Amino acid sequence: MNDAYLKFVNSPFGGRLARSLGLPKPEVLRRYRADRPEFGGLIAIGAGREPRLLDAFASFIASVGMTSVAHESAGLWVPLATRHGLMTGRFEPAEAGSPGKLAALLFDASGIDDSSLLEPLHGFFHDTLRSLGKCGRIVVLGRPPEACANPRQWTAQRALEGLVRSLGKEARRGITANLVYVEAGSERGIEATLRFFLSPRSAYVSGQVVRIAAQGALAHDAAAFDWRQPLAGRRALVTGAARGIGAAIASVLAAEGAHVIGLDIPSARDALDATIRQLNGSTLAFDIAAPEAAAQIAAALDELGVDIVVHNAGITKDKTIAKMTDAAWQSVIDINLSAQERIDDALLAAGILRDGGRIVAVSSISGIAGNPGQTNYATSKAGVIGRVQSMAPQLRARGITINAVAPGFIETQMTAKMPFALREAGRRMNSMSQGGQPVDVAQTIAWLAHPGSAGVTGQVVRVCGQSLIGA
Amino acid sequence: MNDAYLKFVNSPFGGRLARSLGLPKPEVLRRYRADRPEFGGLIAIGAGREPRLLDAFASFIASVGMTSVAHESAGLWVPLATRHGLMTGRFEPAEAGSPGKLAALLFDASGIDDSSLLEPLHGFFHDTLRSLGKCGRIVVLGRPPEACANPRQWTAQRALEGLVRSLGKEARRGITANLVYVEAGSERGIEATLRFFLSPRSAYVSGQVVRIAAQGALAHDAAAFDWRQPLAGRRALVTGAARGIGAAIASVLAAEGAHVIGLDIPSARDALDATIRQLNGSTLAFDIAAPEAAAQIAAALDELGVDIVVHNAGITKDKTIAKMTDAAWQSVIDINLSAQERIDDALLAAGILRDGGRIVAVSSISGIAGNPGQTNYATSKAGVIGRVQSMAPQLRARGITINAVAPGFIETQMTAKMPFALREAGRRMNSMSQGGQPVDVAQTIAWLAHPGSAGVTGQVVRVCGQSLIGA
Repeated sequence: MNDAYLKFVNSPFGGRLARSLGLPKPEVLRRYRADRPEFGGLIAIGAGREPRLLDAFASFIASVGMTSVAHESAGLWVPLATRHGLMTGRFEPAEAGSPGKLAALLFDASGIDDSSLLEPLHGFFHDTLRSLGKCGRIVVLGRPPEACANPRQWTAQRALEGLVRSLGKEARRGITANLVYVEAGSERGIEATLRFFLSPRSAYVSGQVVRIAAQGALAHDAAAFDWRQPLAGRRALVTGAARGIGAAIASVLAAEGAHVIGLDIPSARDALDATIRQLNGSTLAFDIAAPEAAAQIAAALDELGVDIVVHNAGITKDKTIAKMTDAAWQSVIDINLSAQERIDDALLAAGILRDGGRIVAVSSISGIAGNPGQTNYATSKAGVIGRVQSMAPQLRARGITINAVAPGFIETQMTAKMPFALREAGRRMNSMSQGGQPVDVAQTIAWLAHPGSAGVTGQVVRVCGQSLIGA
Repeated sequence: MNDAYLKFVNSPFGGRLARSLGLPKPEVLRRYRADRPEFGGLIAIGAGREPRLLDAFASFIASVGMTSVAHESAGLWVPLATRHGLMTGRFEPAEAGSPGKLAALLFDASGIDDSSLLEPLHGFFHDTLRSLGKCGRIVVLGRPPEACANPRQWTAQRALEGLVRSLGKEARRGITANLVYVEAGSERGIEATLRFFLSPRSAYVSGQVVRIAAQGALAHDAAAFDWRQPLAGRRALVTGAARGIGAAIASVLAAEGAHVIGLDIPSARDALDATIRQLNGSTLAFDIAAPEAAAQIAAALDELGVDIVVHNAGITKDKTIAKMTDAAWQSVIDINLSAQERIDDALLAAGILRDGGRIVAVSSISGIAGNPGQTNYATSKAGVIGRVQSMAPQLRARGITINAVAPGFIETQMTAKMPFALREAGRRMNSMSQGGQPVDVAQTIAWLAHPGSAGVTGQVVRVCGQSLIGA
């Protein structure tokens, strides 16, 4: 952890000092550890009228072994939970004086079809938010607005975004708040996504809106998998894997069971070997800027094929545009964007990326919001968003998903070199008041690469602690 | 103007002090004044390969009387401009030493269909940005990504967003940068939008992405109009018109020729009368929270009908959700969102809002990004975005457009009462380093209400000086 301030204010003396001076006190985020239980504690359930997803919740909660309590808005929950053999009780607002009692808040807003029916959301979060513990989880589920039958329903569902983003900014204390739009018919496909957003794996993902599509062809290859080793038997190509975020991605995918093929430029071969050796993976040393690299990568992967492609390799060459050379513009666009296109085209045309596969591309908050001094980088990263949005429909028939993650301020060697004031602003201007870790990006990618994420495609998920900065 | 700092740093002494202390020096923005020429000066033209919109530019530039210079990227421009009878020359990069020479930069990226072809954008802005004067205008035109023929083209067009948003943040000095996606076949419909984004009217609108759809049915009632009085003969309902932003909207629409019907609650009748009297408009005093109000408004407008509806009325009742009463939640959702639905339903069902009409709803940056202490307000304003997106397709056949504006920090009586630190943060955290004025919101609404904006529908345009804050 590079954040000395975070350590300081969470020491006994530092904490007292921060309190007396009114300084921000970022929470030490709880992150996933293989040696600790991933789920546990009490989850409060709330619902609007005619909730459609309670059954899907119940089987999820049963499978992870949490205990539920029903808010008065979710009157249907108790009999339903009992049918599923779940431990359950009623949430008593009187206990709101007992902070930290709850581990998660889950609200089913799927049946709300008019703006005048949004009130149960207020009732639920009004009653429960203070009882949610540190690093707690908030998930609201609704229906994709654009798939709604009429403008009133679309409007009510779209309104949920404003609520969830506000809750994330209001809750603080390491709490995340996310909105999942579940298309009718995709209920069976929500478990991998619910697990991610309720797990410590999503420690630095907040204020996000994710859609789960009815899977149809996408369910293609979802086959059976083991929740403890969901990527077992799968081969994952990770570009830029030698160091930093790429190395974290390789490590998390390997921990989930994948055979990782780490790729980096020939000059980083030693670091790449060191990173990948401990994961029992294999390595490829190519410069993806070279026109022939895509064909070479395809040839190298041809025999065994690949199931997951993570486009992580990227460079920055920051300068104001008036001072930016043509070479600095071109190389950033080429490596961060065009090379991804060339590699995917080669792997897809030859069927090397198998049906049911996963593509995850690394975009950036700069690609969403723009950034001074990064016209080249922001253009390339906005293009990555276009890639994901444009290719998702085309890849559907083959059951392949394509998504992007957009990191915010992540603590790396690169950010450690930033000027102090800029670094501190980037670190603090988010709902967690701290930078993220490479593993936060990696865990998000692992969720998107999951066989259970077949319904998640064409999306951009920020890993930014709900940064204030956006478009 | 409430911004004492802005006045101070633009005084001779304040300017020297700000320079020596390294303080930000926000520009005094040039705004539209009826007694000054709206357009003038030199506009530099750049283009990617196979630009499709140069003809449309040429007729626009001819109509407003600017003088163009062609960047080397736009080799086709000189002969074409000459055919249109335009004064034109070549942009010489050697003159980049003469800052302030240019009033606007216009780039036609419509023909760029691969990420490897983005370089001319770098060449153009590299050469010209330093020559752009204070309060200059940058407009990039492309094709809507989602309408592109293939993923490569979609990706390249989507990449433009990252560039334009970065340029806006880099340029400073009161310069705006916006991206207009022009659907093939809608070229005739770009003039009203180009005028807005190149005019002082868009002083506080930057970093925005707007789409112009091929008009078809939308062109319905665009008929002939006078650019100097485009709303002449049109009747405009403005809710919340007594004061603040609503009064500014009423005033700008009246100046553009509309007959304004100002609506406000009965208790604001005196202020409403005073505001509307000087505009020779008419008034309606209703409480839109009352269930019967929509029908009463429809009845009051029935005889003469209405062409433009501006849903500006709104309230805030800020509290953290744990402390927010049910009444505070309900009244904000009802007045800011449900009342808009009731009024539009009544006006549309009875045909009182005429074919070819315009609906503009006021959303908010809080509805996009969420805001702590504003769960109710942000939910209502996110719902407004849903309203616009859901109703636009339905209203197309009648030639009615519906759009939203999302103000950022606008200097009003409300913001004047904010705590100092919060107010200063809101004011400075944008590319203009200052708050906007009510007239900035009003001018944006006037553009959307314009008969020439028939191709602009279902969109959300922020009036925020390109605030850092977003989703």
